Amino acid sequence: MHFFFPHEKYCVQPKVRCQITRLRYQITRLRYPRQKPASYTDSSDDETSPRDKQQKNSKGNGDFCIKNIKQADFGRREIEIAEQEMPALMALRKRAQGEKPLAGAKVVGCTHITAQTAVLMETLSALGAQCRWAACNIYSTQNEVAAALAEGGFSVFAWKGESEDDFWWCIDRCVNLEGWQPNMILDDGGDLTHWIYKKYPNMFKKIKGIVEESVTGVHRLYQLSKAGKLCVPAMNVNDSVTKQKFDNLYCCRESILDGLKRTTDVMFGGKQVVVCGYGEVGKGCCAALKAMGSIVYVTEIDPICALQACMDGFRLVKLNEVIRQVDIVITCTGNKNVVVREYLDRMKNGCIVCNMGHSNTEIDVASLRTPELTWERVRSQVDHVIWPDGKRIVLLAEGRLLNLSCSTVPTFVLSITATTQALALIELYNAPEGRYKQDVYLLPKKMDEYVASLHLPTFDAHLTELSDEQAKYLGLNKNGPFKPNYYR
Amino acid sequence: MHFFFPHEKYCVQPKVRCQITRLRYQITRLRYPRQKPASYTDSSDDETSPRDKQQKNSKGNGDFCIKNIKQADFGRREIEIAEQEMPALMALRKRAQGEKPLAGAKVVGCTHITAQTAVLMETLSALGAQCRWAACNIYSTQNEVAAALAEGGFSVFAWKGESEDDFWWCIDRCVNLEGWQPNMILDDGGDLTHWIYKKYPNMFKKIKGIVEESVTGVHRLYQLSKAGKLCVPAMNVNDSVTKQKFDNLYCCRESILDGLKRTTDVMFGGKQVVVCGYGEVGKGCCAALKAMGSIVYVTEIDPICALQACMDGFRLVKLNEVIRQVDIVITCTGNKNVVVREYLDRMKNGCIVCNMGHSNTEIDVASLRTPELTWERVRSQVDHVIWPDGKRIVLLAEGRLLNLSCSTVPTFVLSITATTQALALIELYNAPEGRYKQDVYLLPKKMDEYVASLHLPTFDAHLTELSDEQAKYLGLNKNGPFKPNYYR
Amino acid sequence: MHFFFPHEKYCVQPKVRCQITRLRYQITRLRYPRQKPASYTDSSDDETSPRDKQQKNSKGNGDFCIKNIKQADFGRREIEIAEQEMPALMALRKRAQGEKPLAGAKVVGCTHITAQTAVLMETLSALGAQCRWAACNIYSTQNEVAAALAEGGFSVFAWKGESEDDFWWCIDRCVNLEGWQPNMILDDGGDLTHWIYKKYPNMFKKIKGIVEESVTGVHRLYQLSKAGKLCVPAMNVNDSVTKQKFDNLYCCRESILDGLKRTTDVMFGGKQVVVCGYGEVGKGCCAALKAMGSIVYVTEIDPICALQACMDGFRLVKLNEVIRQVDIVITCTGNKNVVVREYLDRMKNGCIVCNMGHSNTEIDVASLRTPELTWERVRSQVDHVIWPDGKRIVLLAEGRLLNLSCSTVPTFVLSITATTQALALIELYNAPEGRYKQDVYLLPKKMDEYVASLHLPTFDAHLTELSDEQAKYLGLNKNGPFKPNYYR
Amino acid sequence: MHFFFPHEKYCVQPKVRCQITRLRYQITRLRYPRQKPASYTDSSDDETSPRDKQQKNSKGNGDFCIKNIKQADFGRREIEIAEQEMPALMALRKRAQGEKPLAGAKVVGCTHITAQTAVLMETLSALGAQCRWAACNIYSTQNEVAAALAEGGFSVFAWKGESEDDFWWCIDRCVNLEGWQPNMILDDGGDLTHWIYKKYPNMFKKIKGIVEESVTGVHRLYQLSKAGKLCVPAMNVNDSVTKQKFDNLYCCRESILDGLKRTTDVMFGGKQVVVCGYGEVGKGCCAALKAMGSIVYVTEIDPICALQACMDGFRLVKLNEVIRQVDIVITCTGNKNVVVREYLDRMKNGCIVCNMGHSNTEIDVASLRTPELTWERVRSQVDHVIWPDGKRIVLLAEGRLLNLSCSTVPTFVLSITATTQALALIELYNAPEGRYKQDVYLLPKKMDEYVASLHLPTFDAHLTELSDEQAKYLGLNKNGPFKPNYYR
Repeated sequence: MHFFFPHEKYCVQPKVRCQITRLRYQITRLRYPRQKPASYTDSSDDETSPRDKQQKNSKGNGDFCIKNIKQADFGRREIEIAEQEMPALMALRKRAQGEKPLAGAKVVGCTHITAQTAVLMETLSALGAQCRWAACNIYSTQNEVAAALAEGGFSVFAWKGESEDDFWWCIDRCVNLEGWQPNMILDDGGDLTHWIYKKYPNMFKKIKGIVEESVTGVHRLYQLSKAGKLCVPAMNVNDSVTKQKFDNLYCCRESILDGLKRTTDVMFGGKQVVVCGYGEVGKGCCAALKAMGSIVYVTEIDPICALQACMDGFRLVKLNEVIRQVDIVITCTGNKNVVVREYLDRMKNGCIVCNMGHSNTEIDVASLRTPELTWERVRSQVDHVIWPDGKRIVLLAEGRLLNLSCSTVPTFVLSITATTQALALIELYNAPEGRYKQDVYLLPKKMDEYVASLHLPTFDAHLTELSDEQAKYLGLNKNGPFKPNYYR
Repeated sequence: MHFFFPHEKYCVQPKVRCQITRLRYQITRLRYPRQKPASYTDSSDDETSPRDKQQKNSKGNGDFCIKNIKQADFGRREIEIAEQEMPALMALRKRAQGEKPLAGAKVVGCTHITAQTAVLMETLSALGAQCRWAACNIYSTQNEVAAALAEGGFSVFAWKGESEDDFWWCIDRCVNLEGWQPNMILDDGGDLTHWIYKKYPNMFKKIKGIVEESVTGVHRLYQLSKAGKLCVPAMNVNDSVTKQKFDNLYCCRESILDGLKRTTDVMFGGKQVVVCGYGEVGKGCCAALKAMGSIVYVTEIDPICALQACMDGFRLVKLNEVIRQVDIVITCTGNKNVVVREYLDRMKNGCIVCNMGHSNTEIDVASLRTPELTWERVRSQVDHVIWPDGKRIVLLAEGRLLNLSCSTVPTFVLSITATTQALALIELYNAPEGRYKQDVYLLPKKMDEYVASLHLPTFDAHLTELSDEQAKYLGLNKNGPFKPNYYR
Repeated sequence: MHFFFPHEKYCVQPKVRCQITRLRYQITRLRYPRQKPASYTDSSDDETSPRDKQQKNSKGNGDFCIKNIKQADFGRREIEIAEQEMPALMALRKRAQGEKPLAGAKVVGCTHITAQTAVLMETLSALGAQCRWAACNIYSTQNEVAAALAEGGFSVFAWKGESEDDFWWCIDRCVNLEGWQPNMILDDGGDLTHWIYKKYPNMFKKIKGIVEESVTGVHRLYQLSKAGKLCVPAMNVNDSVTKQKFDNLYCCRESILDGLKRTTDVMFGGKQVVVCGYGEVGKGCCAALKAMGSIVYVTEIDPICALQACMDGFRLVKLNEVIRQVDIVITCTGNKNVVVREYLDRMKNGCIVCNMGHSNTEIDVASLRTPELTWERVRSQVDHVIWPDGKRIVLLAEGRLLNLSCSTVPTFVLSITATTQALALIELYNAPEGRYKQDVYLLPKKMDEYVASLHLPTFDAHLTELSDEQAKYLGLNKNGPFKPNYYR
Repeated sequence: MHFFFPHEKYCVQPKVRCQITRLRYQITRLRYPRQKPASYTDSSDDETSPRDKQQKNSKGNGDFCIKNIKQADFGRREIEIAEQEMPALMALRKRAQGEKPLAGAKVVGCTHITAQTAVLMETLSALGAQCRWAACNIYSTQNEVAAALAEGGFSVFAWKGESEDDFWWCIDRCVNLEGWQPNMILDDGGDLTHWIYKKYPNMFKKIKGIVEESVTGVHRLYQLSKAGKLCVPAMNVNDSVTKQKFDNLYCCRESILDGLKRTTDVMFGGKQVVVCGYGEVGKGCCAALKAMGSIVYVTEIDPICALQACMDGFRLVKLNEVIRQVDIVITCTGNKNVVVREYLDRMKNGCIVCNMGHSNTEIDVASLRTPELTWERVRSQVDHVIWPDGKRIVLLAEGRLLNLSCSTVPTFVLSITATTQALALIELYNAPEGRYKQDVYLLPKKMDEYVASLHLPTFDAHLTELSDEQAKYLGLNKNGPFKPNYYR
């Protein structure tokens, strides 16, 4: 298939490719909740490839490619449920009813196709944009949602279980249509961006802006920019304050408890826990476990975070000082080989080991794949690794991210991301000539604040407004931004 | 079947019978975790009734009746896993190796047949007792555990999915054996006790003691005692301090979070929650939710608990004052009709309603079974009830106990109960003539303290001992009891 | 002086006397806040004994004996400030405006004479009682408050700095007035009660009830009762739930922080603290310090409290395991010699040692009075004890109660006690013949609940009322009591 | 006096001058704890001006000007006590014993002369520097510490209660000595810097570096830099992470409780509190009060901080929504007129109002100076403002900073600042040519981390070290810096 050609080409370095794949896999896991209710699966569907089917919705439109248009009603209900928990996008729709800030925008998108994405797409549409969409992952598409979108008139090219060939075919169908010149890209992972960049360079030059959400995609954009090849302004929405704080501190505070309970039913009260790393993720884990009556120890390499751990009431230790006595070990470092075989050997019987950090390398799981140790799968995501003397350690998710594998991500968090994406598109599309150059930008502080403000009504929270006099005293605009860009 | 006769007889009042059944159902739910791993089911088993099968273990012994002796190995592993989390019973086994305090005891038991019970039974055996056992519930038996017990030589009569006829047949087989005069009863619900009392009155008179765990069973014993018909001393282990505090305050602190997450994936941060009732259960729920960043309101009828809620930092309100604004409603009162239709009508869209109290009457679920409301089952244990205007409330477990239906009970808590049962048996069996009369007793404070002390090693907790001088100063025995009986 | 005679007589055992004196001293400290504003002192007053002065208020009444009637205005303001923080007594006044439940009551009282007591006395008066009052402590009288009371028509006999002779003279003046037969006693420490019992036995027999607040006084009443010599019903208000919970758990939670800060300005964050004893006081201290970011260890002798400490997230240790590493040692045991010289020798430089328990014996301060150690008073209530090698420990309040010596007791707590006293007087005075026998009683649960309910408006707390149907379901009276007497 | 001349000159704008004075006053309050023990005063001293006295220490040296050299011993003890709580400086002394990184440095300093400063000066000296010192405030000098420094050979020119004339005379004596060319400036407020800049421009040009601690001083340096007149590199140590986090979040968490208790003895449990502003200071206040059982509301203008407040469990309101119901109002905004007369009019009786923010303008105290309101000073720093209807509000510190006026700053925090100053001096003095230009710099991240690391031993905290492999994986140097500069 000729589609592979350009892709192969730009990924000359196999090592980087491998790393990107790994990162993309993690992103996949983030968006693709494993514990879908049984009703979502459609095992009764025939096995014919969607590419070989005739595609047509009830209005006769056939510019899409999905699994089964009959699931549209079911998908619509899923979208409606999601709408209830994405108040910011719904508010955006209302506020923009008159002005249509995306009128004329032609957006090609490549993200996970879920109910939450559908709410985003229908919002973009309500704001005036035309959209064509593909999936950024071969497994994560909710077929019923894709059906509802297609039924609603969206050109969607995605189904669950695409082959890699299908994957690029779908992306190409999004982009390559007679008479269609997209002017905005919404990407998650950078595949769509690079497809256009490589395959349709002329089209790429006419793009007004790229919005990229993922760590990987952002990384690829920065590389492009460094190499002087990014001829389009791009917005990095991954690093906006609101997203960072929610994904890390607040979500982890909840998901550490959820992940541990669902897998092990462990009682938290009185348990001794060591948390490796006291960044935002570690802070969230520590706060939650302390609140539930666990005794928490912290390890850190950074003296500033270490001092914060002390002031927050945690004993700062080296892992080897407590490894024999703790009941639970949690890694949150982003580092590799934090829990190595030597430590695993010294843990006590029944010790639970899991990873909340940013990679699957924090626990040296490979070191446990040796003949003298027996692995016993006791539940989904739960392995007992058994030493010759009978000692067992309880390894969760084989050392991969606990919060992605064993707990769910609240829609509220996805809502923040989706709103940020919509605002970034509006900003780039409407920005006066010259505001954004051919570079990668962070979302302006003011927009970040706006995303936050759109989520306050969920909490029935009432913001105070500055008086003219106060604004002048503080040297601030009454509408923000209220803090410097580096504020966290 | 003649087995029914005596039972029907003593339950003359259908209303009481009905109440007892309901209470027993709740107890059932407590012991029978719904979320068993798939591997526990044995669908491949034939459909022959165990009563019609030939029963024989590898040593040729056949004095038992279970589903399938071949599952013994699997059951043994389950028991071994449970042993690791029941350190107090294991400690009892060790301490009593020499003396055998239950030598000569002939115990008939009627409890849920689970891995935890098996650890208890094998402990009693190690202490010198002979045991015969039936299940106190027709659904809760873990067949593989029953198999392991039978293989180990225990006379067990129980399988999952007994008919009511089977139920009483099993109990009778426990009791009614040529030449077997039991002298101790360990009961959960009172069925075994009443079977012997009614059917074998002479046998009943020779019993040295009864240990009863459930609210229902205790209630029935008190009634018997009141009527002057209890000719045997009985121990109420349901109301011991350790059990109460653990089952209520500490367990609910964890299970409220677990139950809500597993059913709804709700984010706790910033949510407004009203907790009805500030007893031990309410205190646990409030503490957990406050710690997770929820804003919690409390309702109370008792001014003392109300004042405690205030001092603990919760706004004390009437339900109607906050019902329109809250995101979650949790009942913990033990009362009925706390959340009535009027309140349900006024809740906001998406409000979650659940019950952590002692009955399924706290939420008036019946009032929601009206034609104008639509029920939609969205997940196991989760219903959306939809008003004509589209408002949905999210009802969990149909108003039954959330912590039993939607979360698990940690083995550590079961360990406390089992240890208390074992000690109660030892106490009653060894008590000098006259210490216990024909009445219902609470476990002596000192024994309660002993149960607690046996669980301290789990936490690597080191108790301080009084010096002689200090004991004298305080007027205490160095070995306790340390507090008056009413201390909570 | 003949006044001494009976007193000497009934205190035959010098050892008991000594113990009582010590206990009374502690009670004194409770009511007598050391940090009085400078304005309260009246150094300009002449040195003439009040007994030698002519006493007359502005209305010509002279049936009192105080320091200086001119201070009445100042005292009145103090009383008015106290009224604002004693809403329950003010509410009692209002509710009882019509009925005068103490009409005919002739109360002799012997308590600390403070603004709070004045609010109580004026409430009793508003409820219909006649009052004569003496001080229960020779140092604790606020002279200006006594003046305001005298000016208001109360027969008060008290001043700051009485001699022991003065003390008994004042009590006698209260009791011994031509034509005055008191029928109620309100006592704090038991001195008034015993004075009447010994000196005016006929008067004693006509008393309708005694209300006693202190540990000591209650102890003396129980001894009298045991000896069969208590011919009057007495109410022990010291052990009511509301008082206990407030004085211990909630107050200590606040006063431990206050006491440590005022004396040492220590930063709590990151400090390692060991708290000896996990009763209510220990629970309060631990919760506060944990919340402020300290790392807290607990020692306990009672396994039940120990298990609670574990579940609440504290490492349970023996003192010697952590004594070398902790920054602060706090005793809350009620025991003696908990911190002995051996431990003091091993503490690290700068370690702070203090006592929050019930006696001054918890820290073996005497063992520090040896020649090789240097004492340095660095602030009021703060001593450095210096070892030969230069190590210093920081001893607070010489091992006496930190919360009484170095922090204040909020008026709100005193309000609870005063309300309880008023209600106890009303109950005993109005109880139908036979309800109370010649014994010592706890305040009925219902009254305890009533005291709590009177304090809820302070928190703008709204109690829920049971419906008839609910009350019936629970088997409760709609107005309480809601819990059994032993509920804590 | 000619000393005034240059000073008057550079402060041409009276408004700016006034602002600077106000800011300096606040700084003064920070360093000058009002609650000095009585022993610190020296009322017995004669009234002769130190400038008129003969100054000579025991070694015959007279190059200083202080109040009374006889107090040297007392001052030495104070310094020794401070040394115990400033472990980082003591560690610096030890580490630098060999190398003397400040050998050749001639430091002129102008800071508060306290025991903590003395520890800093003696550390600088131990590191090789020569020091001459003046006070940055006319009231804050601890005379006994100045005496100890003089006795130890330091040229100190400072006493408590200098006139403004004295102030500049002292500064000049520091600088203006035959043959003395300082090469480093350590300033707090910028007065010394500007004196040299204006009066000795040639000397100024030869300075190698300036270290400035205060907001004001930093502000003045930035202005100089903007105007192109800063010919010397300067280090802004005020904005280093460690200092900011400690001064704001962690200190305020403790001082809000301390300040409220010392002034009002208020009970925190159950109190309703509104905190205006949810920056670091507000976060600290809210966390502490929530932990103590208060019910806390938050007001914010910034939606991001508002969302954080929600997630942390606080109701976000506008002030007018809760002003009638709250018991305590705390301002932490840095803004002006946050609490205006309109709100003060609507507060309930007894409401406590105080300011924890950055200025004395947050509460519009001026609006309370009207004839119809009565002010009553009830304690030091506590005023009752009384409305015509008798309503009282309790105003603390007349609206100035509560934590500076009514609580103390722990030495541990001062230790962080002093260590940062020492390291900044070392860095600037040793930096290779060209590293620092004529600009204002933040302390390099790595140094900030070093300051933190020097304070970890206080908590017995053990930092983990990266392995070579891990450092490579993370792309970090094993010794840091570990985070980007903007990390907070």
